[in-house]
Amino acid sequence: MRKEIMKKERIIEQKFQVNFQFNVLFTHNIFDVENSILQQLLSENALNTSKALVVVDGGVKEAHPMLLTAIKDYFKHYNKSIALQGEILIVPGGEPAKNDETLIKSILDKINQFGIDRHSYVIAIGGGAVLDAVGFAAAIAHRGVRHIRIPTTVLSQNDSGIGVKNGINTYGKKNFTGSFASPYAVVNDATFLTTLDDRDWRAGIAEAVKVALIKDAEFFEWLESESEALANRNMEVMDELIYRCADLHMQHIRTSGDAFEQGSSRPLDFGHWAAHKLEQLTNFSVRHGEAVAIGIGLDSAYSHLKGYLDQPSLDRILNLMAKLGFDLYHPQLSEQVIQGLEEFREHLGGQLTIMLLDAIGHGFEVHEMDEEVVLEAMKYIKQYSAEKLEV
Amino acid sequence: MRKEIMKKERIIEQKFQVNFQFNVLFTHNIFDVENSILQQLLSENALNTSKALVVVDGGVKEAHPMLLTAIKDYFKHYNKSIALQGEILIVPGGEPAKNDETLIKSILDKINQFGIDRHSYVIAIGGGAVLDAVGFAAAIAHRGVRHIRIPTTVLSQNDSGIGVKNGINTYGKKNFTGSFASPYAVVNDATFLTTLDDRDWRAGIAEAVKVALIKDAEFFEWLESESEALANRNMEVMDELIYRCADLHMQHIRTSGDAFEQGSSRPLDFGHWAAHKLEQLTNFSVRHGEAVAIGIGLDSAYSHLKGYLDQPSLDRILNLMAKLGFDLYHPQLSEQVIQGLEEFREHLGGQLTIMLLDAIGHGFEVHEMDEEVVLEAMKYIKQYSAEKLEV
Repeated sequence: MRKEIMKKERIIEQKFQVNFQFNVLFTHNIFDVENSILQQLLSENALNTSKALVVVDGGVKEAHPMLLTAIKDYFKHYNKSIALQGEILIVPGGEPAKNDETLIKSILDKINQFGIDRHSYVIAIGGGAVLDAVGFAAAIAHRGVRHIRIPTTVLSQNDSGIGVKNGINTYGKKNFTGSFASPYAVVNDATFLTTLDDRDWRAGIAEAVKVALIKDAEFFEWLESESEALANRNMEVMDELIYRCADLHMQHIRTSGDAFEQGSSRPLDFGHWAAHKLEQLTNFSVRHGEAVAIGIGLDSAYSHLKGYLDQPSLDRILNLMAKLGFDLYHPQLSEQVIQGLEEFREHLGGQLTIMLLDAIGHGFEVHEMDEEVVLEAMKYIKQYSAEKLEV
Repeated sequence: MRKEIMKKERIIEQKFQVNFQFNVLFTHNIFDVENSILQQLLSENALNTSKALVVVDGGVKEAHPMLLTAIKDYFKHYNKSIALQGEILIVPGGEPAKNDETLIKSILDKINQFGIDRHSYVIAIGGGAVLDAVGFAAAIAHRGVRHIRIPTTVLSQNDSGIGVKNGINTYGKKNFTGSFASPYAVVNDATFLTTLDDRDWRAGIAEAVKVALIKDAEFFEWLESESEALANRNMEVMDELIYRCADLHMQHIRTSGDAFEQGSSRPLDFGHWAAHKLEQLTNFSVRHGEAVAIGIGLDSAYSHLKGYLDQPSLDRILNLMAKLGFDLYHPQLSEQVIQGLEEFREHLGGQLTIMLLDAIGHGFEVHEMDEEVVLEAMKYIKQYSAEKLEV
């Protein structure tokens, strides 16, 4: 018996690589018939007419009353090579898109109904939440149909929309259900940014500050020098911000060696552990970028209080955020937020890994957070915000 | 206007590789406490006690009345390093596992309830259908928790269980919803094969004949020489068959350059277009391996009738299948099956791509099937089977 159990057993070792490739294209007026970028994308690898299902964020439709007509006209104009499938599907924008599992079902219904296959397209036009939900549906239909993202917010154009993650919120947990999947392509159309409300315009800038803080001191200085232009909604400066921020995020994915995050390290999630919890505690009335701004402030203050980051650097960080118009404090930023550490660890899996700063432009990781000092950092931020308000 | 639309726009090119790695271990009596393979697997990358959720195929539980006790005792014995989470979840075996979406939900419920994270484990013990369904749930929870497969049938040990696909049947379509995901590890325990009924024992051999036909003439000859031993349920010969068949499948995934099947080519799906349709038409009363055997016979006859494969080779193929005890004809093998071609194309996406044979051990691809000749091939198989029965 023993002998049989322990006899030299065989092993086959499997090891392979999968290549992923996609482009992020920057354009204006994507659905103007004179702009053939999307038509070219859809037909570049096609033997026949390319079928595309189009899903639009309800908020974007409201802001651009002519959008649906423009999309239909665009497909009509190029009807030799591309074919719109059925009616354009309108879905609720913002976090509700990710909180409603029936949305996934309704997209899968359409994918089935119109015979969208692994060489057909699901195009999503909207903010990060809509892209995350549609992207998940596209990723699991036929084990992945081609997915083109047209992000319409600063946040989705410079961060979430150009990455390789999708997901929805289930069990009250952010992104509990989702997958890693490379989009077929991303098209950043600056035209959509013109109608953003001030909150969404500003919120997306938080991820640029974040990536600058952990990776690129020069970009941080540029943000300081352009903070007024950004606060005043200068479009050209925003174009440049999005390009540089997207580029830094994409470089990270390309060079990290762990694009599908099999380890516990999540450097791009600087400031995010508190942000996720704050979004949840406020029932998403605080938007992701706004929460990230608060999370950045908190973890920067923590970095300083633990002696890693000097006072002038912390001052520069908080002042930049304030200049950009961010609230750095929220009444819910209290003890309960600290539970976010364990939830963040659980979502990453394995060891708690938190990015901190030892200089502007340089992050480093720790595996423990001192809860007393986190509470002190909260007080520091509260105090800073109160003084700002008095001025 | 025109100028703005057409101005030189920017592009960021993204390109990265993701590395996947897992082992297929061959063993006996995996839950004997003297066999530490599973304990080693679960704890090799762990900082703390490893949490594992265990899901068992109802059919396997029936066939091995002591299994649940053995699993619990195993975890108790190694409780310093591994911890079973909650009750062992029993799920229906066979295709029903893939036809019921609520199964995915119940596994996700447990993953949430027990805090299974990206460094914890979901272990599935069962046939290919159960592994496919559990694997899908594991792949989408937290964007992928670690999944260990313990396949219990010939088919799942030599083919489906050692691959990188999962999925469930939705909209009445096989694997409509699913993903590509690498398991954390696969453990093939030969002990489970001893209780298989004759149909399941035999069914799994079809995939070995398939991979031999398209890739390895020497393996085909070995199958011919061992056909009697296999029909008589010689365990040692079956061990060898599974090892060689798994090895060929894994080599293919490793060297194809398209492990996640982004193209339209699906060489390992020789004989599968008709098989999928036949399973569906018979409401899965024909098992996958049985259907694949019929599909192999059909596409071999087609290869011959189109002039690609010589008569002696076709005879050898059909005779081997008959010797192994396969039925090569089914009353549902008629015109309706031909719809399977379009469904197969849709699932693959893009161009129809079908593997045919020009010799034993060598497949080649075509992009068109002559429906008249498919019908002739069906008649040929019907005739062959009738003659076999008369003998």
